[in-house]
Amino acid sequence: MDSEFKKQELNVTGEGYLPGLAIDAVIFGFHENELKVLLLTYKNTGFFALPGGFIYENEDVNEAARRVLFHRTGLKDIFLEQFYTFGDKSRHDVEPLKTIMGARGFIPKDDHWLLGRFVSIGYYALVDFTKVNPAPDSISDSCDWFNLTDLPNLMQDHGNIISKALDTLRLDLDHKLIGFNLLPEIFTMGDLQSLYETILNKKLIRAAFQRKMLSMGVLERVAKKWTGGAHKAPYLYKFVSEKKA
Amino acid sequence: MDSEFKKQELNVTGEGYLPGLAIDAVIFGFHENELKVLLLTYKNTGFFALPGGFIYENEDVNEAARRVLFHRTGLKDIFLEQFYTFGDKSRHDVEPLKTIMGARGFIPKDDHWLLGRFVSIGYYALVDFTKVNPAPDSISDSCDWFNLTDLPNLMQDHGNIISKALDTLRLDLDHKLIGFNLLPEIFTMGDLQSLYETILNKKLIRAAFQRKMLSMGVLERVAKKWTGGAHKAPYLYKFVSEKKA
Repeated sequence: MDSEFKKQELNVTGEGYLPGLAIDAVIFGFHENELKVLLLTYKNTGFFALPGGFIYENEDVNEAARRVLFHRTGLKDIFLEQFYTFGDKSRHDVEPLKTIMGARGFIPKDDHWLLGRFVSIGYYALVDFTKVNPAPDSISDSCDWFNLTDLPNLMQDHGNIISKALDTLRLDLDHKLIGFNLLPEIFTMGDLQSLYETILNKKLIRAAFQRKMLSMGVLERVAKKWTGGAHKAPYLYKFVSEKKA
Repeated sequence: MDSEFKKQELNVTGEGYLPGLAIDAVIFGFHENELKVLLLTYKNTGFFALPGGFIYENEDVNEAARRVLFHRTGLKDIFLEQFYTFGDKSRHDVEPLKTIMGARGFIPKDDHWLLGRFVSIGYYALVDFTKVNPAPDSISDSCDWFNLTDLPNLMQDHGNIISKALDTLRLDLDHKLIGFNLLPEIFTMGDLQSLYETILNKKLIRAAFQRKMLSMGVLERVAKKWTGGAHKAPYLYKFVSEKKA
């Protein structure tokens, strides 16, 4: 990994990559009733950005997205969906990239491929927060979870990309059973309701929510029960189909 | 228009266009209870394909899609949504394009930009069938409506692109009021129900459908009534908001 950006810097024409195309990944996690997103901080710049990358000439675009995701989370076979391609010409701004390269001691020529216009294909991923070890890449100081309700200023149009990903997640939640991907394997009905309430940013009626979820026929009650408290312990559930949409 | 493809052929490096990126448009129309899609036939080849095009270096991707649509339908300000970007490397197949160019008497060199790998950004449009005059471009014989239930064999992955567009239309219909874009300005509740039934490919219950549509608060009853038959004439409606999603 550590040599990947260096190789991209030295490869001034971008040979081996699809020209002018990038991938940006909005990786959602859920922890302590907060929806979170993974962001990179670039060394010595204070810039925050979505993890992303480029597509090899002999690689499917979706394959490149899975590769980017694996590098950042260490996870494979997780829920990953393409949701929008960002192609406004106003996205093209060479300054942030010059700053990032400059902070690494590299001064690119004006026709360096990384300074060209990029169209970016946006993906969103739903991951089990407890399984991820966020990994910075060679040009970032850190890769960390940020609460969606408290994001820093983001590079370029990355704030807009996150908004659009969240809109898509909310719509998708309504007709696909994808929320489970954000939870650990075993969860209570309360956990599931909190997740939905957090994503949709509204309170749901408990009885109606429970009825709807159970009617979908994809939850299996797990025999083992909590032994913690004095109150009646809540039932535990797991998702019975494949943990993908 | 007629010189556009000739210019693209002679411009062997694709100068002025975003490299490796194309647009394909699935243009839906509705007529006599059939959902239809606009297809081009390429001169002297028998190939059927979706209308599409390329993106100028100084143009937004969405702007390029509107330009393509305008050239083919003569319509502006119509419902147009990006729905998926097709980027599998298996899409790359030089033979159909060589055949199309050959049928025009043009033999490209192997490194001609039009023979390279293209990632294609898919858009779907909903248009009022009665307002469209399908226009072929310089490399096509004809541009015509085809019933979705009776499509010819399509070039490359264009059949797959149409399937995915239809899936998206069906999902979108559920949470956005977009179906109106496929109807003339004034329509009956029966027209609207036929449209939904055709797109969703299932029968709907009349009373429930009418209740749902009226509850959305976007239909206005038009004073004028049919004077045609002996039976009670159906009410006519129009959509009251902007005719876009």
